[in-house]
Amino acid sequence: MSLSKACKRFADKFIIPPGDHAAIHKRSPAETFGLDDSPEVHARHAANIKRLAELQAVLYADKRYAILIVLQGMDAAGKDGTIHHLLTGINPQGVRVATFKKPTEAELRHDYLWRIHAQCPERGMIGVFNRSQYEDVLVVRVHDQIDKATCQRRYKQINHFERTLAENNTIVFKFFLHVSRDEQRRRLEARVRDPKRNWKMELGDLAERKLWNKYQKAYEHALTACSTPEAPWYAIPADQKWFRNLAISQIVVDRLETLNLKYPAANFDPKKVHVV
Amino acid sequence: MSLSKACKRFADKFIIPPGDHAAIHKRSPAETFGLDDSPEVHARHAANIKRLAELQAVLYADKRYAILIVLQGMDAAGKDGTIHHLLTGINPQGVRVATFKKPTEAELRHDYLWRIHAQCPERGMIGVFNRSQYEDVLVVRVHDQIDKATCQRRYKQINHFERTLAENNTIVFKFFLHVSRDEQRRRLEARVRDPKRNWKMELGDLAERKLWNKYQKAYEHALTACSTPEAPWYAIPADQKWFRNLAISQIVVDRLETLNLKYPAANFDPKKVHVV
Repeated sequence: MSLSKACKRFADKFIIPPGDHAAIHKRSPAETFGLDDSPEVHARHAANIKRLAELQAVLYADKRYAILIVLQGMDAAGKDGTIHHLLTGINPQGVRVATFKKPTEAELRHDYLWRIHAQCPERGMIGVFNRSQYEDVLVVRVHDQIDKATCQRRYKQINHFERTLAENNTIVFKFFLHVSRDEQRRRLEARVRDPKRNWKMELGDLAERKLWNKYQKAYEHALTACSTPEAPWYAIPADQKWFRNLAISQIVVDRLETLNLKYPAANFDPKKVHVV
Repeated sequence: MSLSKACKRFADKFIIPPGDHAAIHKRSPAETFGLDDSPEVHARHAANIKRLAELQAVLYADKRYAILIVLQGMDAAGKDGTIHHLLTGINPQGVRVATFKKPTEAELRHDYLWRIHAQCPERGMIGVFNRSQYEDVLVVRVHDQIDKATCQRRYKQINHFERTLAENNTIVFKFFLHVSRDEQRRRLEARVRDPKRNWKMELGDLAERKLWNKYQKAYEHALTACSTPEAPWYAIPADQKWFRNLAISQIVVDRLETLNLKYPAANFDPKKVHVV
């Protein structure tokens, strides 16, 4: 398949169709549409980022829409790398990254969406969530800190919350970075040996690998329940970093192109104004 | 003067020595140390940004210091441009830009430092202030919304506030982007005619030009009173954008180099850990 033909299919191919089972076990984390890690692919990604920088400038001026990009995935699935490759090169004045770690004691005294809502981007901005409200139906469910009924209720609460965002002009993208268990092992092994990255690892994180199947099941349920027309989930094949970067930049740019973003008119007649 | 020799002198040359008069009227906004807008200068700036990206990664890991970059200057002095040229290319996950506009009603019910403090970067992060606490001794003083005694008290409050930040490991840079009245006129004229930028202009902003001398005097007083050893002001010649970019990237990188930032050790023995 040609590169540009492949790119056109990314959104349709990777979306979890609302109402369908996510069926992530049937989706290959290594999918590349037959594309290779080639100079053409990198040039296409670079062109997407250049275009995204232009779109960000108009988005900021236009002030009608906010963009929210939610990133979820297993450890080492590439959340940090995605942020780096998607947004380095975009004017930082128009971007806010929120990283959701273990909630603080103060945060736990609120409902779980409270800290999330506070970090939602204002119109004109691109907000990125490194982890998100979905941790509250994933990690806590895997560790049996909430029961099934609570989890089901939360899916609905999240859907209502995201619908409110969408109905108030936030364009929501949710990307599940889908890696294989083998690829995760390779990446964690490399991370353990890398002094620039092993400082942030906890041995406890490695223990989570034992819960791989429970996590996949929790993702399957959450993606199935919470892929909605107004805030769809995309399962992005993420074993190949270059493919993950290309797919995400393409999906974001294509969607932003449909918004018909415009610079507002000046509230004066430029022909009649002279600076003295 | 050679480029690298010139770069070495930027911090010393542009700092407002604590205790001295800022004497901004004696500092040329068009100063370039005899340097030209040359490929060498652009390469030097690009190398600084590349180095800043590396330093940001270690800063983030090291978690000992926060970096706060305060930008002030007249309209069109280049605050947005500085942010763009200094930080596009730095991982957005490590950067937070706060833009301080006219305070909201809710903000006005607090002291003027309240909203500022809330936006100060946490350790590991680079925070940028597009305008800052200094608006509360500049615009409000120029428009006689506070009297001289209040303004003097605020200088001290700001100094104490910034000392607290510094004593708690925030490295504070304050850059006054020093443009000439003529250069401002040229830039505003160009902005009026540019459909990508005139949407954000108010005719009222142009009227502020009439208060040029009052603003310069207010800056002179604020920079004189608030350049301290722990949070110095730099008056950056900003008529030439390329020179402004070079000077600021150089001063920031040189200071960060002195911090001896390090990746922390892993809290396990990498030789003994294997991912299964």
